[in-house]
Amino acid sequence: MTGRTRTESRMTSTQLKLNPDRFFPTEPKARALARELYQPVRDLPIISPHGHTDPEWFATNERFSNATDLLVKPDHYVLRMLYSQGIQLEELGVAPRGEVSNVDSRDAWRVFAENYYLFRGTPSRIWLDHVFGEVFGIEVALNAETSNHYYDTITAALRTEAYRPRAILDRFNVEFLATTEGALDELKHHEVIKAAGWGHRIVTTFRPDDALDAERPDFAQNLDTLGELTGENTGTWAGYLAALRARRAFFKSMGATATDHGHPTPSTADLPQSDAEALFDKCRTGKASQSECATFRGHMLTEMAQMSLEDGLVMQLHPGSVRNHNPMLFDRFGPDKGADIPRSVDYVGALKPLLDAVGNEPGFTLILFTLDESTYARELAPLAGHYPCLKLGPPWWFHDSPEGMIRFRRQVTETAGFYNTAGFNDDTRALLSIPARHDLARRMDARFLAELVAEHRLSETEAHELMQDLTVNLVRKAYKLDSGSKRRAVAAE
Amino acid sequence: MTGRTRTESRMTSTQLKLNPDRFFPTEPKARALARELYQPVRDLPIISPHGHTDPEWFATNERFSNATDLLVKPDHYVLRMLYSQGIQLEELGVAPRGEVSNVDSRDAWRVFAENYYLFRGTPSRIWLDHVFGEVFGIEVALNAETSNHYYDTITAALRTEAYRPRAILDRFNVEFLATTEGALDELKHHEVIKAAGWGHRIVTTFRPDDALDAERPDFAQNLDTLGELTGENTGTWAGYLAALRARRAFFKSMGATATDHGHPTPSTADLPQSDAEALFDKCRTGKASQSECATFRGHMLTEMAQMSLEDGLVMQLHPGSVRNHNPMLFDRFGPDKGADIPRSVDYVGALKPLLDAVGNEPGFTLILFTLDESTYARELAPLAGHYPCLKLGPPWWFHDSPEGMIRFRRQVTETAGFYNTAGFNDDTRALLSIPARHDLARRMDARFLAELVAEHRLSETEAHELMQDLTVNLVRKAYKLDSGSKRRAVAAE
Amino acid sequence: MTGRTRTESRMTSTQLKLNPDRFFPTEPKARALARELYQPVRDLPIISPHGHTDPEWFATNERFSNATDLLVKPDHYVLRMLYSQGIQLEELGVAPRGEVSNVDSRDAWRVFAENYYLFRGTPSRIWLDHVFGEVFGIEVALNAETSNHYYDTITAALRTEAYRPRAILDRFNVEFLATTEGALDELKHHEVIKAAGWGHRIVTTFRPDDALDAERPDFAQNLDTLGELTGENTGTWAGYLAALRARRAFFKSMGATATDHGHPTPSTADLPQSDAEALFDKCRTGKASQSECATFRGHMLTEMAQMSLEDGLVMQLHPGSVRNHNPMLFDRFGPDKGADIPRSVDYVGALKPLLDAVGNEPGFTLILFTLDESTYARELAPLAGHYPCLKLGPPWWFHDSPEGMIRFRRQVTETAGFYNTAGFNDDTRALLSIPARHDLARRMDARFLAELVAEHRLSETEAHELMQDLTVNLVRKAYKLDSGSKRRAVAAE
Repeated sequence: MTGRTRTESRMTSTQLKLNPDRFFPTEPKARALARELYQPVRDLPIISPHGHTDPEWFATNERFSNATDLLVKPDHYVLRMLYSQGIQLEELGVAPRGEVSNVDSRDAWRVFAENYYLFRGTPSRIWLDHVFGEVFGIEVALNAETSNHYYDTITAALRTEAYRPRAILDRFNVEFLATTEGALDELKHHEVIKAAGWGHRIVTTFRPDDALDAERPDFAQNLDTLGELTGENTGTWAGYLAALRARRAFFKSMGATATDHGHPTPSTADLPQSDAEALFDKCRTGKASQSECATFRGHMLTEMAQMSLEDGLVMQLHPGSVRNHNPMLFDRFGPDKGADIPRSVDYVGALKPLLDAVGNEPGFTLILFTLDESTYARELAPLAGHYPCLKLGPPWWFHDSPEGMIRFRRQVTETAGFYNTAGFNDDTRALLSIPARHDLARRMDARFLAELVAEHRLSETEAHELMQDLTVNLVRKAYKLDSGSKRRAVAAE
Repeated sequence: MTGRTRTESRMTSTQLKLNPDRFFPTEPKARALARELYQPVRDLPIISPHGHTDPEWFATNERFSNATDLLVKPDHYVLRMLYSQGIQLEELGVAPRGEVSNVDSRDAWRVFAENYYLFRGTPSRIWLDHVFGEVFGIEVALNAETSNHYYDTITAALRTEAYRPRAILDRFNVEFLATTEGALDELKHHEVIKAAGWGHRIVTTFRPDDALDAERPDFAQNLDTLGELTGENTGTWAGYLAALRARRAFFKSMGATATDHGHPTPSTADLPQSDAEALFDKCRTGKASQSECATFRGHMLTEMAQMSLEDGLVMQLHPGSVRNHNPMLFDRFGPDKGADIPRSVDYVGALKPLLDAVGNEPGFTLILFTLDESTYARELAPLAGHYPCLKLGPPWWFHDSPEGMIRFRRQVTETAGFYNTAGFNDDTRALLSIPARHDLARRMDARFLAELVAEHRLSETEAHELMQDLTVNLVRKAYKLDSGSKRRAVAAE
Repeated sequence: MTGRTRTESRMTSTQLKLNPDRFFPTEPKARALARELYQPVRDLPIISPHGHTDPEWFATNERFSNATDLLVKPDHYVLRMLYSQGIQLEELGVAPRGEVSNVDSRDAWRVFAENYYLFRGTPSRIWLDHVFGEVFGIEVALNAETSNHYYDTITAALRTEAYRPRAILDRFNVEFLATTEGALDELKHHEVIKAAGWGHRIVTTFRPDDALDAERPDFAQNLDTLGELTGENTGTWAGYLAALRARRAFFKSMGATATDHGHPTPSTADLPQSDAEALFDKCRTGKASQSECATFRGHMLTEMAQMSLEDGLVMQLHPGSVRNHNPMLFDRFGPDKGADIPRSVDYVGALKPLLDAVGNEPGFTLILFTLDESTYARELAPLAGHYPCLKLGPPWWFHDSPEGMIRFRRQVTETAGFYNTAGFNDDTRALLSIPARHDLARRMDARFLAELVAEHRLSETEAHELMQDLTVNLVRKAYKLDSGSKRRAVAAE
């Protein structure tokens, strides 16, 4: 097949060794500073306020099956890169919708191993090498020759008690982990988690896209379900709002401290209630145009903001991804296979209706994310450096990487400062990569601060304070975590 | 109050010391080169061809009242950051429109001092520490504990002769300073300045936005005033143009060498005179739509360019800021409180009508600024690297910072070269920060050139010549300053 | 003349010396690594799959006339910079359309020499100094004083056998060179080249813009010529497509491995054949609006992609340049005088119709270029990191420079990896600069990889493999070159 990429044995068995100075600056003085800044935060607990791990793992606490099922099949970063080089998803054990893969997991792993060199220079390589070396203790690099050694080592480890989901959280020193569930989710797994005494560590996040997006074919049905779950009449505007309020309250009772919104754009609207009601009726009955659905979504963001003001849930907005850009792949395999593509967005006009409504309200927090880095210095830093409600989330998705993190700090800090940012999110469904991602963020922050100190733009004392703030204090403050006794004083408190 | 940020005593009294190598590269060889390049330009006179200091200061030469009134209340960079962290402007002594603040200046200063850590990593911190250390000789860092020491030291100094406005200009070695006044300003303060023998050093700049922007509610009234000031009939298109010509001539007679235009976008138009006349009539009588007002503004930029060709005034365009994005804040406190937010702009299509008209004219100069850094390499450097009339102004506003300056040089130089740039502007209303800003620009230029030399992309001799050009020669040439005997030969002359 | 820039003798005769470590990092450890990575690829053959050299040079193998005709007049980078500083093109020996220059070549060269300092910090300076030093052995820097020495040395060398076009290709170790010709070109020069036994080294590229762009005034005439060349009835949609297929086959028979498309935007369309046929008829008869012409161009890109799937020609897309932005200059001197200006583009929506049609086809390759760097990390890397058909071309035009190359690698690699890029293109009509450009690319890749190794983000072994891949293997694979025996195994094969 043309375009197909393979190698037989590019690398002989070479060492896998994570250098203790990785990601630090090369210049010796700056490197020494980075090392000093990193050391005190290296072992601080992991706080993960936004992510996509499966709560079923923690509810059932069952063992993972094998290396491929855990590390290849569900990782859209891995699938996309291999697919881009002509590898069919079927070869990786990913089955088309409604089918079951008959590819042996060990064979699928070999395809991955043979092509692992494709990930050179990518964050996937960083995360995976950390998982291989730190989580599984493997000491040789992954390639065709070491494929079986990897598969056997990982799969064997996964059969032990130490690799059950809750044991992993303990081992990783995860203090707090938020998953993300739709508005219609009954949170059965979270109930089990709570009953098992893990409710203080593992909580849900309220993600109501399915109940706000009238473009979805199942919108009307979702309204019905929403009505059933809450006992509200979601055929009316008032009942719909009441039902959403009820779901928010339920999620909050299950530990949620935040909502999350994954809209195509950051557009917001603030319609008069009568107009909103009329638009809701059009949306509900399937008569709204695409543009009206967009206005409705935008208006509902403002409603969500108003409700956040009431119930204190922190609002998160993740806009700008064109989902399922490849219809052939989507039809065959479904979503989350690596075919979501960012597009340029405008925040300045888009957020204005919402900000006009609640932007100056003390007690309301909106954490913004972006995939369009051109907005960092131009729009997001100026907005967050002015509006009391706004905080900037960490570099997201494609930008959750060494270069992405450096660009974020360099482009955001001078206008927004450090204290209008919200600490780190791992945003991952790849459980084992969580420490790798937090470690990378800590190293890159140490690097950035070391460079400021080396250039006499910040004192060493300040840099040490900032390391604590960026690692644990700002995230706790932004997501309103742990306001009680255990918490260290936040710098910005 | 939620969102409110305070600290009691984050820092004990630590030294405030400006390192002589600040902002230079960390690598020793590059640092040594930067030091050598910076040394000969360190004490060159300050040329400030674009800024917003108040001419009344220099006319009356009265003492400033206290630390808060001078350094906190008028600084929109300071206000925005504190406001973003939940501090109310009232606490800083800023009174709502029509009210008088009853907050004690010392108390307001304390709020600022307690929250000074918020500015870590921002240019405000750089400028302010320079003011504190270099201008006031303070040797401890600002925080809650040192708040009173700061307030007393600064306020006492301001009562001395040495801190009168004209003495400050002498001390700062300011050779040339341009302020900015509207088309309707009678330039009374500049008359006094001239009479006092300071007219060669302090001049005005012609900023006619109030007479060109028909969206302003006071546009018709401004036309009337324009008519009264000039004796022209501004109810007609011909009279309006004649009046603008007259004001330009008046400003020029008061020393102006430049005009400035602060439009929402860089859109220009070049209508047939009959269409322009008809559009003027609609605008004048309040019948023009928003879009027609935009076209009128765009056409008037081309008229201004044509007049620049006649009278030799250098034209400056500062587009792309959405002013007063926060209506609640604007209604309560008015403009310039830190709520202006940049937005993406297009220059390539927008400037074409103006460039088609006068882009190839020798003797016409248009200096472009941007808040949208994505246009540096994509649009502005290619435009300035081709059109003889175009020069690029320095990094503006949010980008007047170490990272902003480095991005500007890296993204602009390879296509526009150094000689299509216009030297440094401080663009400030914060008088005491002027040397801090120019010093930062000189240091960052030394840094950029040192890196080119260290990488063998430029010779050391060339870098030394460029330091002189970037510091004094290019600004003099671009703004047509001091064409007489005192002037050193400009590299590009 | 105002705006005019001249210097009498800015520089005395200073040495011209290309430092062996130029463009490498300053930090000693990283520099040593870069040196080690660069050394093995320094002398690898040059593979130039996309460029604009004139095939007549290689067909006739005649000597070039003089320094000015070869190095100044045809170089739009040089013309634009000098024009931007007020130099008239006439002074450089460039004649207006239909006229012949009466400027002496030596005098024109002097204007260039006097103003050579304007190129400080630009890639033109890098390429030209390389040509002066390496190709002509000149040892003093170019300025007014050395102008005649340069003119004489270069012009004398050009009269020798060693500087005939084919000898130059041998000396430069050019293994493969593609020129670019329009669809209507009869490839007479390439016939001669082939007959001379150079057909394996110098091939054409199929660039059918003249036959796809119905906005061109000569479109109807081009269709007629296309019909004459192919014997097809290009007055019908079927005949038009057949004629394009025939031209593609002819170009392929003359060695072409690729097509190239220089559209204003990357917009594509995929119309039903009946709609396409109707639109073709409107375009053919001059009745199509500007927007319909754009749709037609976009549809034809998809047709070209479909034909590439049939005949295996690699497709290249170079969008986003506003050609001939300066109508005064265009009317007087014609195209390619330095007045093409990039504009922001969207790839994510624009390419979707084409990608929906053939994006998942094995065997189809589309190499994307951009002048809008904001799309690197936001759009192009995610697209190329997913679609099997997409590869990213190297930094193009204004970005073919040290900073441009570093930005490309930093913004693209983390999401697209190295193996979705297509090696280096020199894209030049400046024959003598070819080795300078390839050398710069190799040095910048060595630099980028050295930094990754120094920061422990890549092993040294991997970096050495990547140097080979980036220099020769990826370009051969992307452009389907040399699939036979001579070829080393591509890493990604």
